[in-house]
Amino acid sequence: MTVYVTRRARFSAAHRLSHPDFSNEKNLEVFGGCSNPNGHGHNYELEVTVAGEPDPLTGYVIDLKKLKALIEEHILAYVDHKNLNIDVEFLSGINPTAENIAVACWHQLLPHIQGGRLHSVRLRETENNVIEYRGE
Amino acid sequence: MTVYVTRRARFSAAHRLSHPDFSNEKNLEVFGGCSNPNGHGHNYELEVTVAGEPDPLTGYVIDLKKLKALIEEHILAYVDHKNLNIDVEFLSGINPTAENIAVACWHQLLPHIQGGRLHSVRLRETENNVIEYRGE
Amino acid sequence: MTVYVTRRARFSAAHRLSHPDFSNEKNLEVFGGCSNPNGHGHNYELEVTVAGEPDPLTGYVIDLKKLKALIEEHILAYVDHKNLNIDVEFLSGINPTAENIAVACWHQLLPHIQGGRLHSVRLRETENNVIEYRGE
Amino acid sequence: MTVYVTRRARFSAAHRLSHPDFSNEKNLEVFGGCSNPNGHGHNYELEVTVAGEPDPLTGYVIDLKKLKALIEEHILAYVDHKNLNIDVEFLSGINPTAENIAVACWHQLLPHIQGGRLHSVRLRETENNVIEYRGE
Amino acid sequence: MTVYVTRRARFSAAHRLSHPDFSNEKNLEVFGGCSNPNGHGHNYELEVTVAGEPDPLTGYVIDLKKLKALIEEHILAYVDHKNLNIDVEFLSGINPTAENIAVACWHQLLPHIQGGRLHSVRLRETENNVIEYRGE
Amino acid sequence: MTVYVTRRARFSAAHRLSHPDFSNEKNLEVFGGCSNPNGHGHNYELEVTVAGEPDPLTGYVIDLKKLKALIEEHILAYVDHKNLNIDVEFLSGINPTAENIAVACWHQLLPHIQGGRLHSVRLRETENNVIEYRGE
Repeated sequence: MTVYVTRRARFSAAHRLSHPDFSNEKNLEVFGGCSNPNGHGHNYELEVTVAGEPDPLTGYVIDLKKLKALIEEHILAYVDHKNLNIDVEFLSGINPTAENIAVACWHQLLPHIQGGRLHSVRLRETENNVIEYRGE
Repeated sequence: MTVYVTRRARFSAAHRLSHPDFSNEKNLEVFGGCSNPNGHGHNYELEVTVAGEPDPLTGYVIDLKKLKALIEEHILAYVDHKNLNIDVEFLSGINPTAENIAVACWHQLLPHIQGGRLHSVRLRETENNVIEYRGE
Repeated sequence: MTVYVTRRARFSAAHRLSHPDFSNEKNLEVFGGCSNPNGHGHNYELEVTVAGEPDPLTGYVIDLKKLKALIEEHILAYVDHKNLNIDVEFLSGINPTAENIAVACWHQLLPHIQGGRLHSVRLRETENNVIEYRGE
Repeated sequence: MTVYVTRRARFSAAHRLSHPDFSNEKNLEVFGGCSNPNGHGHNYELEVTVAGEPDPLTGYVIDLKKLKALIEEHILAYVDHKNLNIDVEFLSGINPTAENIAVACWHQLLPHIQGGRLHSVRLRETENNVIEYRGE
Repeated sequence: MTVYVTRRARFSAAHRLSHPDFSNEKNLEVFGGCSNPNGHGHNYELEVTVAGEPDPLTGYVIDLKKLKALIEEHILAYVDHKNLNIDVEFLSGINPTAENIAVACWHQLLPHIQGGRLHSVRLRETENNVIEYRGE
Repeated sequence: MTVYVTRRARFSAAHRLSHPDFSNEKNLEVFGGCSNPNGHGHNYELEVTVAGEPDPLTGYVIDLKKLKALIEEHILAYVDHKNLNIDVEFLSGINPTAENIAVACWHQLLPHIQGGRLHSVRLRETENNVIEYRGE
């Protein structure tokens, strides 16, 4: 029996999209306003889903308080109220598109999930744009 | 051709998490504030998804008015404005974690779904915690 | 590696559910208030998901600005502020249930998605009713 | 002591904005897509606020179950799943802008509110457009 | 110059509506399902608004981190994951209608607000029911 | 008769809170993570309310399409996908707290509102923090 447990977390961060080999003009052409040289920012919503069988003693797949703590320790502590291009070691050298951030968050969490397997990471960048990665 | 039809319903209920073999101290250690002896409560959101082929005459997989009525008859009538530890026969003897409630709701609905197959039951306990069960 | 990219769009439209071979009484019996002869309407939310591998140069599966433009060109331009029974060529002869609209939107978009494959179309008709089609 | 009690209700309706003395061209110029001849529609959200002193016996300003019933009887029964230009007597001869609908809903409810005074009617036509009327 | 600063907080609690002088039958007649003898519960949303002039040095009316801490110390610590009829000293002897809870929260906070004046307390009990108190 | 018309708009921007006369340590002490030297960011939601009497010909207080255009021209064009500390002339020399941004947006819009009077500007910085200014 598999049950899917999702925890939502939020962080506020600045970023700028660009490619280091592109000129400023090329970056603006490819990334539009997202490549504003001084950056812009978002309230990101992160939804982490863990799949597994509920423990017969507790009825939990994974204690959501523990999943919350893991997200805070391994993701929020690095990215909340930060500049994703400059301040975040696990995004170093990565163009912080929502796709790339979601994949990086997956790899940040993967080694720490116990009592179930990491199933998906969803990143909502705006109310209209959402990215999901399932490790495949 | 498979189309997925989802109906959202809501109910307000009290519950307390605990294991009958645990001491009060052990329960508070395992379940934290969720094991407050006098209970607490939630506005639960339940999303029921039925999968199937739209009927060529009606264009419906399942009439959403009928799915609404089935959720009301087989779930809401038992749990809305109730104490999940005491008042609900289909949760009798079950520690009412969101995982266990979602699985129990699946089994409440399964025999009554026609015109499609029950695909998933999602239970949102708070705006940050969501559980899904797909019957597998 | 597969990443899922979702763009949400909105449109406001009128519709009436009915079957041309049914009498008015039969239509009201089958479709209830949704078959009000003078129609009713909704704020529809459409979520289009494209799956693919992020481009190593841009970090995009598909540029969300481009996906937004495709949805506007191939769907919103036809349905927003329209009557779905009368004004929309791609729904001609189709009973505009949410199921049928979602499937029709899938076929409107499918030929135009590049840089990834169309994965799903979700149509939220009210805050309680959602339809999803995945092309299978 | 004044406490403000708000009940939210929802209805789905079609409408068309126009002025009977305007030509079709003039209507489209003034009202844009909202004047599409075959209509369009919305999921309207209506928030009704009643102000008053909580009854010392019940702790209620007005029983929200009763306020819900009044909204259903005097508003939803007329407008839900209807065409606001054709089907609704209390909107007869009125151009159904959100402003005019909100004012008309105020007058529908006013004679029936007891145990408090009607304070405001808010009508959300889309997630971006909201109208409020306070009877002044 | 007056600026209004609002902080939202959330808590999950059980409650039962009743009057100690009413019989069980009378309580069920007056309060309906809200008087279920074993209680039910809600995810409450509390919005606290403070009005004042922004400090010229900081640009803050009140530091929202401080307002958050005051709400946690003087309200959430008492009510979150609690039974409002039994566990909460500041609601002792009070029928926990949303009206009465909102007024009690106002009085809990009032002595502690500095750098502005407490303007309103809004309590959302369900997505359809909201109460506001402004201290008048 | 006064009717209140609200238009919601959104923008994504980076900012950093600080006072130029404060040391970095003092800024971090006063503004916490909001003073991260490389900035952070938000999805801001702006709600602009105009009050007035509906025009008897159109039923509009102010055409919401026009209000949308005014917000885009006088606010979004300056702040969306920008760094509020560096890129925005109308915030030059202003510490971009939500309070200060809301007041500045009020003054940006005030000269351009016709057909009603500007009633309030609300700025939602996160789902928990909201600022309102009413020009008084």
